[in-house]
Amino acid sequence: MNKIEKVYFDHNATTRVDDEVLEAMMPYFQNKFGNPSSGHNLGIAGRQAINHAREQVADSIEAQPSQVVFTSGGSEANNLFIQGATGHLKSTRIIVSAIEHPCVLRPAKELAQSTNKECGLRQLIVDRSGRIIMSDVDKALSEYRPNIVSVMLANNETGVIQEVANIAEKSRKLGALIHTDAIQAFGKIPVNFPSLNVHAMTLSSHKIYGPKGAAALIIDKELVLRPQIFGGGHEGGLRSGTENVPAIVGFGKACELSKLRMERTTIHVTRLRTHLEKRLIEMGAIIFGMNATRLPNTCYFALPDIEGETLVIHLERAGFLIASGAACSSAAPGKSHVLDAMGVEPILARCAVRLSLGNSNTLEQINEFISALTCTVKELKRISSVMI
Amino acid sequence: MNKIEKVYFDHNATTRVDDEVLEAMMPYFQNKFGNPSSGHNLGIAGRQAINHAREQVADSIEAQPSQVVFTSGGSEANNLFIQGATGHLKSTRIIVSAIEHPCVLRPAKELAQSTNKECGLRQLIVDRSGRIIMSDVDKALSEYRPNIVSVMLANNETGVIQEVANIAEKSRKLGALIHTDAIQAFGKIPVNFPSLNVHAMTLSSHKIYGPKGAAALIIDKELVLRPQIFGGGHEGGLRSGTENVPAIVGFGKACELSKLRMERTTIHVTRLRTHLEKRLIEMGAIIFGMNATRLPNTCYFALPDIEGETLVIHLERAGFLIASGAACSSAAPGKSHVLDAMGVEPILARCAVRLSLGNSNTLEQINEFISALTCTVKELKRISSVMI
Repeated sequence: MNKIEKVYFDHNATTRVDDEVLEAMMPYFQNKFGNPSSGHNLGIAGRQAINHAREQVADSIEAQPSQVVFTSGGSEANNLFIQGATGHLKSTRIIVSAIEHPCVLRPAKELAQSTNKECGLRQLIVDRSGRIIMSDVDKALSEYRPNIVSVMLANNETGVIQEVANIAEKSRKLGALIHTDAIQAFGKIPVNFPSLNVHAMTLSSHKIYGPKGAAALIIDKELVLRPQIFGGGHEGGLRSGTENVPAIVGFGKACELSKLRMERTTIHVTRLRTHLEKRLIEMGAIIFGMNATRLPNTCYFALPDIEGETLVIHLERAGFLIASGAACSSAAPGKSHVLDAMGVEPILARCAVRLSLGNSNTLEQINEFISALTCTVKELKRISSVMI
Repeated sequence: MNKIEKVYFDHNATTRVDDEVLEAMMPYFQNKFGNPSSGHNLGIAGRQAINHAREQVADSIEAQPSQVVFTSGGSEANNLFIQGATGHLKSTRIIVSAIEHPCVLRPAKELAQSTNKECGLRQLIVDRSGRIIMSDVDKALSEYRPNIVSVMLANNETGVIQEVANIAEKSRKLGALIHTDAIQAFGKIPVNFPSLNVHAMTLSSHKIYGPKGAAALIIDKELVLRPQIFGGGHEGGLRSGTENVPAIVGFGKACELSKLRMERTTIHVTRLRTHLEKRLIEMGAIIFGMNATRLPNTCYFALPDIEGETLVIHLERAGFLIASGAACSSAAPGKSHVLDAMGVEPILARCAVRLSLGNSNTLEQINEFISALTCTVKELKRISSVMI
């Protein structure tokens, strides 16, 4: 880490743990460190803390505490749904959108390639704005007759919000199980489990100023899942293993705070992004998903002829932490499967960078960013013209 | 929690996070909170912290950092081996000991009951002291011809240490994959990955004064596992999901400290336990696994006619936190499958209680415990004689 404080514009990748969240977690490392399965008071204190967090998580999405299954992270929760829902089916026909996170896409592909099960996969296509095309949903449902459907609520790269409730209604009519990965949407727009009408929904802690190491799969009571981790029978038998009490406590607190702060944060980041995008457009930027309903904090854009990776490195030197794509893969940064699905030309996709704003960002930071970007672009163009 | 400080004698269930461990973790919640998959400096700081922890874990067991696969906990790591190793096999014959933790036993049973795969399970029997019977190992290996074997290094209830290196040699000769759950042994006795000669080994953080939420499967390079969580390809593709950086950092530090303190701790807890067991025997207690080589900190005993659950409750009132069995299950406390496998009569098994000592315990606490136990037993016998 450099000594100069950087401006963090990468909140869709992860967030700083909130002071109040960390404060809530701290007692569970040392004073109340018990194993929640222990019968003595130190164990009971851990058990009660988990129960309280379960209420906080449920309350933030208007679900019941009994519907919350804690996992170690969003990837685990998404895999628990995709692999767990197929666990009790003889043959599986899965539909997911082409722009899902790898932790939905890859288990689905893995199942489809597996020789152990009869399993097929159909991907929903999106338009140039990154919206799932509803006529393709109708076509896929009627022709493919899936028994499992998974569609994300908002995309992590573009921020584009999908018509999940609508897709859920159509899926239920066919008797398919419907799941939504709400990780990126949660904390940024109101997320209501009953209204979405899905059988299962994934939430994660570290995208909403909670700690890494906690997430949840919210499940409809009629849903039967095969667990992925067998053992002591924790989480109603759906997820064995000693609970990560401090992380779960932090997740609960982060949900509570998120609900309280939602409106103010939305107004704040919308204001910043509106200003940012106005200036970006003036600079000739193309904003991906511009015409779609998007999360208020996400700005995914390209300045034609300026490579995204290069821009990210130069802007970091100038003090700004942004992303050239999704920080979801530990593999070498490849091309974005999201932009690919949107039909963005590879030459433009290589120029993509993402700013994702959070509650600590300010208008001043946006202005400083625009200045730095202007200088950087001028410099890069100068270098490139010299090289030609 | 009561206001009176209790004496904690339940270190096999979980441990308090060490001050130095917590100190190492703290920067990663707020200052260095980046997603280790992010390309900017905040991400790189997280990546470097994980790499350092990987070295600390590897160093503590004389493995290579590249052999460490981080998971969210021991149950996940054990499931990753059991289910992951079978993932690439057409038909599976698994051998486990009858006294394994549920997170080994249950996935093995689940696979054996699954209709998707041809899979069988054979359990190794133990003697009255809780030792796996080596003649049964020979018989099982030659007759059952397993391709997967899993035997714990030390049992969580009795502390009895098993002949893993010997079983590994025999298993390898037959071409079987051999795994050991070293969770309870790790940090209490020296654990050396190369010497044990296994293909895979499970370690956990929260049993060695590290935080909950981190564990590792140590793997031989020739071992091919099917991942359980698919997604961004973290941990060499074996375990996707944003890494729980603070917990992994804490786990690494706990491994380092454990190695440094091992000898002193062993001498200390051995002294306490020797004193404790001498007094317990004088009181007429039966100590399970007494004749076997055991972990130095574990004392699992029964006072005939005094029910374990009752004793635990009374001793908690007197200020001592002990266990009536293993804190590994969230289900209602049932009978111990370990004592059952040892051939302990149910009437005696109901009297079992476990003290598991840690580095903060003192001789004075042991003496106070013996006094409290003596009073409690006297009181319980008085009540019972009045009732008769």
